[in-house]
Amino acid sequence: MTTVAAYAVPAAKAPLERTTIERRAVGEHDVLIDIKFAGICHSDIHQAQEGWGEAIFPMVPGHEIAGVVSEVGPGVTRYRVGDRVGVGCMVDSCRECENCEAGREQYCTGGGMVGTYNALDRNGEPTYGGYAEKIVVDAGYVVRIPDGIPLDAAAPLLCAGITLYSPLRRWGTGPGKKVAILGMGGLGHMGVKIAHALGAEVTVLSQSLRKKDDGLKLGADHYYATSDPKTFEELRGTFDLIVSTVSAPLDFNAYLSLLKTEGALANVGAPEAPVSLNLFSLLGGGKILAGSMIGGIAETQEMLDFCAAHGIGAEIELIAASEINEAYDRVQNSDVRYRFVIDTATI
Amino acid sequence: MTTVAAYAVPAAKAPLERTTIERRAVGEHDVLIDIKFAGICHSDIHQAQEGWGEAIFPMVPGHEIAGVVSEVGPGVTRYRVGDRVGVGCMVDSCRECENCEAGREQYCTGGGMVGTYNALDRNGEPTYGGYAEKIVVDAGYVVRIPDGIPLDAAAPLLCAGITLYSPLRRWGTGPGKKVAILGMGGLGHMGVKIAHALGAEVTVLSQSLRKKDDGLKLGADHYYATSDPKTFEELRGTFDLIVSTVSAPLDFNAYLSLLKTEGALANVGAPEAPVSLNLFSLLGGGKILAGSMIGGIAETQEMLDFCAAHGIGAEIELIAASEINEAYDRVQNSDVRYRFVIDTATI
Repeated sequence: MTTVAAYAVPAAKAPLERTTIERRAVGEHDVLIDIKFAGICHSDIHQAQEGWGEAIFPMVPGHEIAGVVSEVGPGVTRYRVGDRVGVGCMVDSCRECENCEAGREQYCTGGGMVGTYNALDRNGEPTYGGYAEKIVVDAGYVVRIPDGIPLDAAAPLLCAGITLYSPLRRWGTGPGKKVAILGMGGLGHMGVKIAHALGAEVTVLSQSLRKKDDGLKLGADHYYATSDPKTFEELRGTFDLIVSTVSAPLDFNAYLSLLKTEGALANVGAPEAPVSLNLFSLLGGGKILAGSMIGGIAETQEMLDFCAAHGIGAEIELIAASEINEAYDRVQNSDVRYRFVIDTATI
Repeated sequence: MTTVAAYAVPAAKAPLERTTIERRAVGEHDVLIDIKFAGICHSDIHQAQEGWGEAIFPMVPGHEIAGVVSEVGPGVTRYRVGDRVGVGCMVDSCRECENCEAGREQYCTGGGMVGTYNALDRNGEPTYGGYAEKIVVDAGYVVRIPDGIPLDAAAPLLCAGITLYSPLRRWGTGPGKKVAILGMGGLGHMGVKIAHALGAEVTVLSQSLRKKDDGLKLGADHYYATSDPKTFEELRGTFDLIVSTVSAPLDFNAYLSLLKTEGALANVGAPEAPVSLNLFSLLGGGKILAGSMIGGIAETQEMLDFCAAHGIGAEIELIAASEINEAYDRVQNSDVRYRFVIDTATI
């Protein structure tokens, strides 16, 4: 056991405060990681506020972790001390079900993936996330961060990056394809970069044109405001794929009308309320509405290698640990360009 | 112009009655078909009652047409007098848009496909469907009925058959796949036969077990009642594909829970009211909700050839034209096993 400093939410909706937590001893297949940077994901806030159901407190959020290996268990061959590594939304899964065997650990049916925080590990102990100095993780759930990506800009790739990369790849993003990214936030800005690097013609659909300059700079070819009804007339039947990153209520029927025949709207946002769907929006054009949730471990490694090859990292605002509560407020006001990353040296 | 006897709906919701209509002269690329049999599709009733919006009256319904060629235009090379042929839901489209060029005429974006009835043709004249002695159709929208299928059992394939065949093929139905057919009616019973012939393990999900014996006889491996809540516990996470043929309101979230990871629910039913969808039903498993509407001309031919090779026709109740109104009532009460087909010699 190792005692490490961390920032924790002591109870639902309470502000984060500095504390200490225990990390387990490094087991045979474990890696001890000195956390260097941890991204702040909107889902950290949802869970800290118990917005997605009962949560475990105290909670140390953080599932966008970038750091350096400082110790490895005797059974670990893949990593060595000094390696640059990352940990995303999960730290374990059953490893035996059809999905785990197929590299889709995020959809583990053998009890479900073990979340990096706000979950119970195999021993029934709560997991604690990345807002901390160190973490111990089974090497099978650790990925390598290529040298080409600075560690601070790499951290958000572990959730925001893979969340966009996976549906973009699944639905055939590439040259000759027209892809829209709905929402220009932490998730959306990664979608713009990755879809552009994959060779697609990229359109941002954002509520306003406020971030248009950024969008074009990051790789978008077009930028439209969804608050303008003309957008929906002009873009009718345009896209092979729309990836929606929006968690606010949306008129999905309107967005489905922007798809080409047999096009797909992949949703990675998590609206809390059900949406009203007119099935004729799907029928007349053989259209697809699909869900997507992060990605598997091998796919996360593939994404990191892809990002390194294309010089892609997240656009970040680096903060000290003492600024986390303020950052939470700003995320809720969509006032971040485009991801807060905690410098964990300040914990 | 040729005057032919037909059964028509004189005004919305009025009973059908015998009348005569004019068919155009056989043009260069046209085929004159002596209609032998015409299926009664539930959508005939929807349109006769103006349930899908304003309709054109008098209306001669019928888009499941089987007959024999009795004359061909000078430019027709594909068909000869005496050929057994069929006509489905469309008799024309723009022939120039991306979808028409790709053989997806049903999704024509150049003005939309021209319906076999309740539509206007290129000259602005109303189209009249299959409840008639003869029809003139451009040869490009006519398909060949292989000798292996009796004409009466072939008629419903032109709509019910292709409506199921297309999504079953698109979503990978075959050996090793578990496929559920939701609804055991005119569409559903074709789904059972085709999915079984494609090699899948087939489950029928029907409101009750009333038609279980039929389902198993037609090729289903399993048969469950959706009125029994235990069905949803037992079948959780089971299917690669569910094809829903139901037009009544459904709890799609419950049916999505029966899919495997990354499985698809393809909807061919046309509920008039919007459905309430919880997006978490799609997120947690990367699931797909898709629409599908009939199929293209080449795909319809492929379906007929497939059905002939596997000895598949529809299960029908053959009726005289004088029984159409009674048949409409019975279709609305789900009292048909499994498709009414009009013997047009009785018109």
